[in-house]
Amino acid sequence: MTITITAFERSPDRGNGLARDMRVRWALEEAGLPYEVRLVSFKTMKEPAHLALQPFGQIPTYEDGDLALFESGAIVFHIAERHGGLLPDDAAARARAVAWMFAALNTVEPPVFDRALARILERDEPWYEQRLRGLEDSIRKRLDGLSHRLGDAEWLDGEFSAGDLLMVTVLRRLQGSDLLAEYPNISAYVARGEARPAYRRAFAAQLAVFNASNG
Amino acid sequence: MTITITAFERSPDRGNGLARDMRVRWALEEAGLPYEVRLVSFKTMKEPAHLALQPFGQIPTYEDGDLALFESGAIVFHIAERHGGLLPDDAAARARAVAWMFAALNTVEPPVFDRALARILERDEPWYEQRLRGLEDSIRKRLDGLSHRLGDAEWLDGEFSAGDLLMVTVLRRLQGSDLLAEYPNISAYVARGEARPAYRRAFAAQLAVFNASNG
Repeated sequence: MTITITAFERSPDRGNGLARDMRVRWALEEAGLPYEVRLVSFKTMKEPAHLALQPFGQIPTYEDGDLALFESGAIVFHIAERHGGLLPDDAAARARAVAWMFAALNTVEPPVFDRALARILERDEPWYEQRLRGLEDSIRKRLDGLSHRLGDAEWLDGEFSAGDLLMVTVLRRLQGSDLLAEYPNISAYVARGEARPAYRRAFAAQLAVFNASNG
Repeated sequence: MTITITAFERSPDRGNGLARDMRVRWALEEAGLPYEVRLVSFKTMKEPAHLALQPFGQIPTYEDGDLALFESGAIVFHIAERHGGLLPDDAAARARAVAWMFAALNTVEPPVFDRALARILERDEPWYEQRLRGLEDSIRKRLDGLSHRLGDAEWLDGEFSAGDLLMVTVLRRLQGSDLLAEYPNISAYVARGEARPAYRRAFAAQLAVFNASNG
């Protein structure tokens, strides 16, 4: 059975690995699973064939035989449940890793994503500076909590897990900002994620798609 | 072993069941599990004892013997994994229910929560109307996708699941707005969730806390 995921034909992040297929590629690489990629355009994403797989017209999707999934968090969890290296065996540690998965996507990502969106869409609005400050204050509250909990540990809770994988992908959206630089332990944590061989293979694969579409 | 969760001593929603402990209470009621509640104030939430349980200083938390969890999505999943009625037995259907859990919290909740926050914090700003329209456009895109997928089904994918539980709690934040009224099938879906006996018990329990604190 071949695993097929979808990704942007031409990613708006210019191959910087911020699109949500990166999470799924990374998880597949950690699990050592081969996969194929079907590229979609902003037009085909909104057409019935894609909406049947992804009700909100987004990427990524995941197909494996009869199973079709959407939501990067759910896809990463599905891979993590079935293959080694992304969730601890111990039941309590596993539940805590799942808590970090939800923390990445429901607590840390929303203000981080809002800031990225505001920087694109609201730059010329009269409220831009005030809004950006408000968002950055919200992000700092999250990073304060994260930095305090992480301390000088390598990963959030013992061994590297799907919780770390999602958290690193969320935090990468702050790279190049003063925000991340204010938290050296978080910056080092993100760098540790990016140094993993599976991360590097996933990053190279999505960059190759972008380069080909601009070739 | 007694399950203990945390909730607001004085919920800012005035007992309307929008705080995130409601999700956990509802899941516990669906599973038929008794639980205790430890109330926290906005002050004690930020103190070391609570931060040890919840790194971001939020509610709810979940304690069961040696296991301590945070993130409402992860707590609901933990309950759903161990008890009947919240996740299908079939592996593919279960993976799809998890996809709806993540969709509720990572795709639908962020703009819905942003709108609620803007209505509180930005009401007096000169840009308020424009910002609200932008947020409501984002929410409509989500509701379009959700409404199309739901159609005239009772729940999002077969039997009621933890995905429906989370989605209904997210959508309730739109109640009283024109937004929800524009989608009769989604309104009816939310009403079906609220009509479940487990929902009603959970709602009554959180309302009793609010009433007691205003006694």
